[in-house]
Amino acid sequence: MTLSRVCYDCGARTNAPVARCDCGEPMWLETDPEGFDWDDCSDEPGMWRYESLLPISRPGGIADAAGGTPLVTDAAIDAFAGTNVHLKLEGEHPTGSFKDRGSALGIAAVAAGLAGDGSAVGTVSHGNMAMSTAAFAAAADLPCVVFVPDDIPSERLAVIDQFDPSLVTVAGEYGRLYDETLRLGTEHGIVFLNSDVPLRVEGQKTTALEICEAFAPDVPDAIVLPVSSGGHASGVWKALRELHEAGAIADVPKLYFVQAAACAPIAEAFDAGADEVTSVVAGETIAYSIANADPPSGTRALRAARETGGAVIAVSDDEIRAAQHALAVDAGITVETSSATALAGTKRVVEEGTIDPSDHVAAVLTGTGLKEASTAGSPTSGDHVELPALGEYLTEFTGHAD
Amino acid sequence: MTLSRVCYDCGARTNAPVARCDCGEPMWLETDPEGFDWDDCSDEPGMWRYESLLPISRPGGIADAAGGTPLVTDAAIDAFAGTNVHLKLEGEHPTGSFKDRGSALGIAAVAAGLAGDGSAVGTVSHGNMAMSTAAFAAAADLPCVVFVPDDIPSERLAVIDQFDPSLVTVAGEYGRLYDETLRLGTEHGIVFLNSDVPLRVEGQKTTALEICEAFAPDVPDAIVLPVSSGGHASGVWKALRELHEAGAIADVPKLYFVQAAACAPIAEAFDAGADEVTSVVAGETIAYSIANADPPSGTRALRAARETGGAVIAVSDDEIRAAQHALAVDAGITVETSSATALAGTKRVVEEGTIDPSDHVAAVLTGTGLKEASTAGSPTSGDHVELPALGEYLTEFTGHAD
Repeated sequence: MTLSRVCYDCGARTNAPVARCDCGEPMWLETDPEGFDWDDCSDEPGMWRYESLLPISRPGGIADAAGGTPLVTDAAIDAFAGTNVHLKLEGEHPTGSFKDRGSALGIAAVAAGLAGDGSAVGTVSHGNMAMSTAAFAAAADLPCVVFVPDDIPSERLAVIDQFDPSLVTVAGEYGRLYDETLRLGTEHGIVFLNSDVPLRVEGQKTTALEICEAFAPDVPDAIVLPVSSGGHASGVWKALRELHEAGAIADVPKLYFVQAAACAPIAEAFDAGADEVTSVVAGETIAYSIANADPPSGTRALRAARETGGAVIAVSDDEIRAAQHALAVDAGITVETSSATALAGTKRVVEEGTIDPSDHVAAVLTGTGLKEASTAGSPTSGDHVELPALGEYLTEFTGHAD
Repeated sequence: MTLSRVCYDCGARTNAPVARCDCGEPMWLETDPEGFDWDDCSDEPGMWRYESLLPISRPGGIADAAGGTPLVTDAAIDAFAGTNVHLKLEGEHPTGSFKDRGSALGIAAVAAGLAGDGSAVGTVSHGNMAMSTAAFAAAADLPCVVFVPDDIPSERLAVIDQFDPSLVTVAGEYGRLYDETLRLGTEHGIVFLNSDVPLRVEGQKTTALEICEAFAPDVPDAIVLPVSSGGHASGVWKALRELHEAGAIADVPKLYFVQAAACAPIAEAFDAGADEVTSVVAGETIAYSIANADPPSGTRALRAARETGGAVIAVSDDEIRAAQHALAVDAGITVETSSATALAGTKRVVEEGTIDPSDHVAAVLTGTGLKEASTAGSPTSGDHVELPALGEYLTEFTGHAD
């Protein structure tokens, strides 16, 4: 059995386990949300409570720990952004990022024989997705190959390697590898769970399902998330379409996607009023994990922003740093630089007047800062005290604290 | 208002916000669980669903994200340990460890004026607890001082520093600092949330509350967790006592606490049949974060193991490495070395015949491996492939995978 796929753009359908439509745009799974109601949510853990909207039920193992992330508010963050912000903490996942939702679903689908004759999995990534895919494949006992760029720091390689995938550094143009693996994977019976393929997108729907359920029977005015390949953006949009089609949400929240200014092909297409996203030459940014110069689902993300009345915006590294710092010192939340774009973007759209101060915005913090210790904190040696001088130090500390 | 405290050992009571009884043993909060039933759990997020057993309700902000961690099973881990293992993933916390439960409750209590006249917080730690306390204090807008040993790696210092506490390296005997801060803190109006103080222990109860609720109306046969200061062990024991007193559990699970063999004062006291834990000279172990040579709640943990029919055991670094590796490659779970002791200890007690293969054991994986990248993976350079040779590589890969 293979799941049916449909092109969001031209409407073409196929039962072949492909990621791309003949028209060139990405496919996603064909689903039938009709009749879904929030009461249909099950008591299964995490993302599996939405099994009636997913192609597969809870698979067991670490996959059961995907989803179910907290949504918190913090008055100081509201003040920083200028509106009511609901922070979705995707870092609270087994491998520390939102990627675990797509890996959990994708790998369970492969293990259940729902992805054609694929009996192994792979991915192309230099960070979160590599780690996530390797971890969930290990748990499902599926062979896994992970392609990484050959300039990856050895420390990050060790993190991925702990799950013992076939780990391969690749020389040559890394962008081309994405499509090459999709093509060659089909030939070799390896399901490449790259960032915007239908199975991964289907798992990424659950970010939006959780946000919307938390607001039900209302909806948030907007959802803001970082965008790189456009896979997560596609999943969030697909979820909103399904919920709206089923009548579970009366209004569709506006979708705002955020890129780093140094590499912002989707934001540039949005600003230019273009119908398609074209590749750019990437500059340097601290938000390296979303610096995708040629996003495979860029046009789909562009469409999602337009059709929901949102936007795609670009923020500077300074804005990203300010948001990351505010999350840490005001809200006690550590995020990676690319995740901080969600808050930086929220603040920006409020300043631009697109979002009102009275609105409620869900900002998706896609990954923990624990993996990025070196960028999160500034180098410090701290104060220093000798044990006998402890009381003296504390007197001084409380003096300052008063 | 101050919360009342009682000594588990001599039964002395006080309204003073102290951590130690005059008899020398640690105090914990006096609570009244009578009449508690699982139906009394609220719909609040995470650990706050047990508000009827806690001295404070959901405080808002990042504290709302504490607790509510997944409990998963994995057939390969059952095979590794030789029994039915339920893995409690405490790494899925805002700062990646179980410490967030105690920080969330402790800091909220201080902010609410329930901790005497304390208007600032502090802690003594070289890792998880430092990060956790600093993060939750930042969110609560409380001044926070963190004392760390002066040989701490600068990278770990940067991780703590991102939350902008007053960070102080201390020269001199680090163990003495623990008691000194408790004494001086009271004088200076600073509540030191060290690892076994009553407020932190009260938050740590929720680990066991969640485990027991997941098994209700049954109970697990045993709970296995790493032990260092004995604070977490005390919290888990206190929760079981309260649940049993309330009649919410018919039987009390056996408590097994695990230490690294190189630094195992509580295990040594248990083996010797001693009534008290005395300090040892610590050797080197990869599980450095639980290498506490003079555990302040060691005797209380010893009592907890004995009274529940469990034990305190010591495992070697090789056993810890094997458990850490099995969690990664069999279950896709990354944990820090000290957390892997929970699985190593489970395997050991099964081998020793204390736990049956048909038993159900909750093993508490106290912290994520994401902070310990360098110890989790072995150094690797991976395979290497040139882009045009991709198809050839995949042919070889699937050949091996078949």
